[in-house]
This record gives sequence, structure tokens and C-alpha cells, in this order.
Amino acid sequence: MTDKRWATMHDVARRAGVSQKTVSRVINGEQTVRDDTVALVLDAAEQLGYRRNDGARLLRQGTSSASLGIVTEDLAGPFYGELLTSVQRTVQHHDYLLLTGSAAGESHRFYSLLRAFVLRRVDGLLVAPTAADDVSITNELVGGLPCVFVDRPPSNGAIDSVVSDNGGGTRDAVRHLFDHGHRRIGFIGDDPGFWTARQRLDGFLSALNALGLSTEYVHMAPADSRVTPGWATDERGPTAIVTGNATITLRQLLRRRDHPDERGALIGFDDVEYADLPDPALTVIAQQARRIGETASGLLFDRINRADAPARALTIPTRLIARGSGEVGPPSGA
Amino acid sequence: MTDKRWATMHDVARRAGVSQKTVSRVINGEQTVRDDTVALVLDAAEQLGYRRNDGARLLRQGTSSASLGIVTEDLAGPFYGELLTSVQRTVQHHDYLLLTGSAAGESHRFYSLLRAFVLRRVDGLLVAPTAADDVSITNELVGGLPCVFVDRPPSNGAIDSVVSDNGGGTRDAVRHLFDHGHRRIGFIGDDPGFWTARQRLDGFLSALNALGLSTEYVHMAPADSRVTPGWATDERGPTAIVTGNATITLRQLLRRRDHPDERGALIGFDDVEYADLPDPALTVIAQQARRIGETASGLLFDRINRADAPARALTIPTRLIARGSGEVGPPSGA
Repeated sequence: MTDKRWATMHDVARRAGVSQKTVSRVINGEQTVRDDTVALVLDAAEQLGYRRNDGARLLRQGTSSASLGIVTEDLAGPFYGELLTSVQRTVQHHDYLLLTGSAAGESHRFYSLLRAFVLRRVDGLLVAPTAADDVSITNELVGGLPCVFVDRPPSNGAIDSVVSDNGGGTRDAVRHLFDHGHRRIGFIGDDPGFWTARQRLDGFLSALNALGLSTEYVHMAPADSRVTPGWATDERGPTAIVTGNATITLRQLLRRRDHPDERGALIGFDDVEYADLPDPALTVIAQQARRIGETASGLLFDRINRADAPARALTIPTRLIARGSGEVGPPSGA
Repeated sequence: MTDKRWATMHDVARRAGVSQKTVSRVINGEQTVRDDTVALVLDAAEQLGYRRNDGARLLRQGTSSASLGIVTEDLAGPFYGELLTSVQRTVQHHDYLLLTGSAAGESHRFYSLLRAFVLRRVDGLLVAPTAADDVSITNELVGGLPCVFVDRPPSNGAIDSVVSDNGGGTRDAVRHLFDHGHRRIGFIGDDPGFWTARQRLDGFLSALNALGLSTEYVHMAPADSRVTPGWATDERGPTAIVTGNATITLRQLLRRRDHPDERGALIGFDDVEYADLPDPALTVIAQQARRIGETASGLLFDRINRADAPARALTIPTRLIARGSGEVGPPSGA
């Protein structure tokens, strides 16, 4: 349908301004290449329509379905949207297809999806188990199939995984607020039954402990609750708040709109597109969803090619983006 | 793994408080059931873990891959996220799996994905062609495969489609502003090379014409542009603005934050999660992405079962949600 000449690896190297060896490393998902170089190479490959055509070859040979499966809790929301987009990009780049599944927090659906993927002979799986006890069941269901855990760790060290440094994120937030003079710092987090929520809480508490601060201002807000606590800055409440996710951040911003006396510093977990809208603009702990997706799918292609390589557990750092709300100092006398 | 008894259609009917016939109609994707009833039945089916198990049966018979493919421009963003979630829900409910693909606005990738899906013998396709000329090529590529166009119409009336009433949305916005006293109404839209953007522009212009208003305040903002026009309300500019998408809405809100003299009425196309954050809160034209996804996947299962049924072109209405910014009147003397 297109009469475009297929681009070669040489074309991609030229466009990206790197060596063919580097292109080869990126295309094969090796972890030795710098992130910005990976992005450069993938962009060049996309612009030129370069494809490995592994999938087509494998399908012809009848040795593979040339497809991967991904099961996440959710398919909407910025984090999963960005993760899915970057996984899709890498997978299509290998001329594989991606089967998606959403467990929507229900274990029985999670297991059904895994079985359905195995039944269709996918070449590998990316999974984010919904609950802690899914982990061992996942191990059993997927059997010897190449598998990478994403956003949650496996209980079994023999499986590859890529997760965010959730605890490092909240630790960074606490230190940042401490550096801006805060000594009473609160946390409004999600249900610590979720692994990511627990990590964020643990990071928060460990940072307070390391700095010798009180841990009394910790509040767990169920995901479906519309109630969010507020602390007026003239009381003996916290002078700064860290949130555990973007839903809680938005709830806190809405509360502040209606309670002008609650104007403490605020750092939100997860970046949001409307971060510049509040005044002051929102300081956040940003996850690198795109990098998590690229890394996880790279690991999975690695694993498919080298079944006996040692398992790797990679943690992708978060980044604190200072925009104003996290740089507000405590009120004088607080 | 789960020892749960499988729920029957009878269980679902009881839980939803409807007849078994109604459950059967919903499960078979018939279009004769009211939306709220469809939601009620699907919710009950989900709560009970009810599954048709068509997919497993077909796979055993070897007559089908029990999978559908979806190709959209994008996988991130609230609209596609919600669309994908509802399609995923319906597809999993039929015990099918979903293969996803993102064309990222590039025709060559769009064609590659279609070919790859056909090669893997998916049972049907949901497609949102990226450009106008993709439409006829899509017809050719998919051949006799069951196919439903989503968010874009086919050029060929023989193919099923489900789209938003984009033009109706901007028409409603203009009438709403007119009813609140505005006579000079501006539009900041996306590149009308996109079908949805053109529909929104056409709806806007036709509403102005019907009301005898001037069409001079129309501005097309390329998707990647950070520039957004502003009109101070004390000049002879428009006293109200309608936007063509959520990116443009956010840009306009950010501009207003820094230009307090620009305080005209504002109606944004597409709802946003942070709608209550600005003051006044944001009035929007909301698309029903979930309903579009449910309807399109329902049509596709219909089509798979009845290849010779006449094609249907369905348009899902938008809803105007009044929150404040669209109910501001023009300044006195304007």
C-alpha cells in the first residue's frame, strides 16, 4: 500500500546521529544505553518507519504468535495511559502485537485474563497484579512463559520486574519540605493494602523518622472517598502536606479553593496536566511512566531471547518537579 | 483457581432487576435496550463474574481466534482511555481478547497494524482512521472482515460506525451562550484537517449563521502550538469563547490566569477531571466515550454474528454540563 523503501538500521543511526551498534543495542532492549539516547533512536526509527519485522518472520515460521499480553488494573488514567503507550510503541517496533487486559481490581478477572493469554500462546506477559496474593498465583499460571512484573514486584526473585521508586518519591518530598523550613508535615495517602500506596507511606514515615519529626499527621483516604482532611495553617496542624496520588491531590486543591485559610505547602504524588493552573502552581513527585513501559517491554524481549539470563529487578527513580506549592515556607510562628 | 460457581443469565437478571430476555439482548449487543438498563445489566454481570464463554468455545472449535483488534490514533488521553476501557470491558465480557494498536497519526503504521491484525485472524476490528484518505484503504485492507468505524465515519456506507455528535456539541454551546446574552462568540479550534475538528467548527459556524451572528472570531490553533489568542472583554472582541478540545481549553485557562482582564464566558469541548478547579468552574461539552465504546463493540459482535445485516451509522449525543464559566453574561455595554 505504501511504496516507501523500508529504512535500514544504518538510516536510523544516521538520523539519530549515533553508531549502528548503539541503534542495535536500543532495538534489542539492552539496558546499557542512556535514556536520552534511547529516546533519540526510537524517535528516529519512528520517523523513518524502521521496523525489525521480527513478528512477521516468526509468524511465517509458525514458531510464535508474535504477540505479547499486558494485564493492568486499569487502562485509563494518565499513568496507565502513558505506560500503555510506551509499551505499545516498543512492541509495535518489534512488529509484535499487544493484547491488553484490564483486571479492574478483581482477582478472578485477573486470572481469567492470564489463562486467556496463555491459551492464545502469547510470547510473553507484562503483568501488574491487582492484589498481593495474586503474585504467587501468577507465577503458577504463567508457568515457564517469559514474564515481567510492572509497577508491582514479584514475590519470587526469579521474575524480572520494573517498578517506580515510590518510597524514594515521598522521601524526597519530605526532605524538600524540611529544607523549606517545615517541621510538621502531613500525608494523605491511599489504602496501604495496595503495594504502591504502602511504599509511598513507608517512604514518608522513614523520612520523618530520619529527620526526627512527628508522624502524627498521617491520614489514609480510601480511593472512593470524597472526604479529605484540611488543616488550617494557624492551628497546630501540619504546615505542609504530601499526597499519595493525583486523585487525592485534586481533592485537596478543591478543598483549598473553598477554605482560603488552608494554605500550607503541598506536594502531590504523580504529575498532572493542569499543574500550572492552581496558584501557586503544583509541585509534584513525577513518575516516569514512559520509561517504565520502555524498560519493562525491553526486559521482556530480552527474556524471550534469553530464557536463562538472571532475573533483574529495576527501580525507576521519581523526579521532584518544583513549581511553587512545595516551596511555600511555614507561616511565621508555626 | 477460583472455586466460585459461574453465574447464569438468570442470576444477572435477578441482580439487575430485569427480565432474562433483557439480559440476553444486552449481552448480544442489541441496540433496543435503554442505556441505563445496559449499564445496570453490565454492572450486575460484572459483580457476579458472569461470562458468556463464547471465546473459549470458539477457540476449542478452532473456528475463531476469539479476539478483536482496535486501532486508534492514541492510547493515552481521557477520551481514548475511557473508550478503550469500555471496549475492553465488553470484549472481556464475551470472553474475547483485545489486540490494541496505536497509529500515532502515521498512515504507514495504521496500515501495518491493520495487516498485522488480519494476519492474526482477529474476528473483527474497531478502527479510527487517522487521516481522511485512510478510509478507502481501510476498506480494502480489511476485506470482508467485520469492522466498525469508531469516532470517524467510513466513506463507504456499507460499514458500521459510531461517532460523537461533534457538530451538535458546538451548536449547543453557541445556543447556550446566546441564551446568556452573548452576541460576539469566538471559537478556538484544532486543525480542521481532522474530521472531528472540522465537525466541531462546522457546528459552531452553522449555529452562528442560524442566529445571524458574526463569524469573525474563529481561530485555528495547531495541536502543537502553545499560542492561544486572548480577547480582553473591554475591547470589541468576543465576549464568550468555545474551544475545540481539552488541550486548547487548558491553554485558555492558563492564559486567563495571567491576564485577569480576559474574563469572558468559556465553554470547553470535552470534560476534564479538574473542571471544578477554575473559578468559575468550567462549563463543558462532554462526549460520552464510554457509551461510544460500548455501542461500537456491541455493533461489532452483532456484525460478527450477522454478516449480512444492513450497516448502521450511529451518532452519540454530547451533553452540555453547566458549571459556571459558560453562564457568565457579557459585560454591560458589550
